[in-house]
Amino acid sequence: MTYCIGVMMDQGIIFASDSRTNAGMDNIGKFCKMTLFERRGDRVIVLLSSGELAGTQAVLGVLNQRCVAGGDVPNLWSARTMFDVARLVADAVRDIERRDGQYLQECEAFNASFIVGGQIRDEPVRLFRIYAEGNFIEAEEATPYFQTGETKYGKPIIDRVITRHTPLPDATKCVLVSFDLTMRSNLSVGMPIDLLCYERDTLEVRMRRRLDPGDAYFTALSRDWSEGTRNVFRQLPELAW
Amino acid sequence: MTYCIGVMMDQGIIFASDSRTNAGMDNIGKFCKMTLFERRGDRVIVLLSSGELAGTQAVLGVLNQRCVAGGDVPNLWSARTMFDVARLVADAVRDIERRDGQYLQECEAFNASFIVGGQIRDEPVRLFRIYAEGNFIEAEEATPYFQTGETKYGKPIIDRVITRHTPLPDATKCVLVSFDLTMRSNLSVGMPIDLLCYERDTLEVRMRRRLDPGDAYFTALSRDWSEGTRNVFRQLPELAW
Repeated sequence: MTYCIGVMMDQGIIFASDSRTNAGMDNIGKFCKMTLFERRGDRVIVLLSSGELAGTQAVLGVLNQRCVAGGDVPNLWSARTMFDVARLVADAVRDIERRDGQYLQECEAFNASFIVGGQIRDEPVRLFRIYAEGNFIEAEEATPYFQTGETKYGKPIIDRVITRHTPLPDATKCVLVSFDLTMRSNLSVGMPIDLLCYERDTLEVRMRRRLDPGDAYFTALSRDWSEGTRNVFRQLPELAW
Repeated sequence: MTYCIGVMMDQGIIFASDSRTNAGMDNIGKFCKMTLFERRGDRVIVLLSSGELAGTQAVLGVLNQRCVAGGDVPNLWSARTMFDVARLVADAVRDIERRDGQYLQECEAFNASFIVGGQIRDEPVRLFRIYAEGNFIEAEEATPYFQTGETKYGKPIIDRVITRHTPLPDATKCVLVSFDLTMRSNLSVGMPIDLLCYERDTLEVRMRRRLDPGDAYFTALSRDWSEGTRNVFRQLPELAW
């Protein structure tokens, strides 16, 4: 399983991904699911990968090779808009599905999918969710975030706390609490957590952090959240039967 | 879908169930999923139903008919222990599976399951989870609760707040917040909520309540919880990137 989330707010986008991969309980791995394409002053593009690892790595491989080829080959460095970026990722997903899909049918369907967001110079910040079929949707006011993988445990807290107007530091705390809730309930989601906060119109990444197991800040956050919510419970009104 | 939960603590058991049934988004119903067998001073047995409604109703029908038949037919009124109660429910589940299972294979498998708990005089309070196959497990110190149906959204808060030593009024609040979180994320879980709190060794039900849509207490609880958690977030430490 996996847990990835991208949240778009007025001030920018927060991306976060866990690092656990598994093919059964007895086959656990650790891979980074966050990929950054950054050219300072020009573009910041972040991809969060979900699904079968061979598939997501192959998609990233194709995207990277097309960047290196450059020239007439449309690629992430030459894309003019984030919409074009989403289409390039979708095209790569479909290329890999065409190549691998038929060989995977006997185990499970091709299921590589992505959360993709960022900004290109003179363009707005945008956030997309690209499905394994290569179609995609974009975040908007009513739904400013996308999750993939084990989404349920951490969803209520995101819904309660984050809106488009939430400041980035507050949203960062909320995203990390959402990871804490998820990791406590699903062993197939695990640290390290890759966290990246892109601030609108900076066109460079100034806040990026990998939180390893035992990270002091994460541990304190988890403890304070637990104590805080238990205090809230003590103050809630009691039911008069 | 459904959301049911039974939580066993030192002081007793809290049972809660939603009332929504659905066969597709365009076929929504409202049925009580909580069934009480009570003989004051002798026994309190509570069943929470999950799964296909025809199956759970049939199981309850069989259990009721066996109570009425009485005599040599083992039934919930004559059972000596809660373990025997669990076996009687399991037997009824298997009877219905034998009768209906083969006719359901083309749509979906027989999936009626139950949370069953309570107390019989001179016996301890016990809580079981009975699967559609008729096997069952019992709650214990390490895992004092069972959920069925849409379990994920409401699980982290139960894990954080409730232990065997939690007082019943606090656990009641937590169970209701867990319902609030679930209903906000899954439309197939809906009010009214049937809530029952059994206090150990009373051998009668003194606290039972149906919370309808718009219930004043539930609305206040939901609002206070939202405000409280947002306050907790404001006080959490910020990440130093």
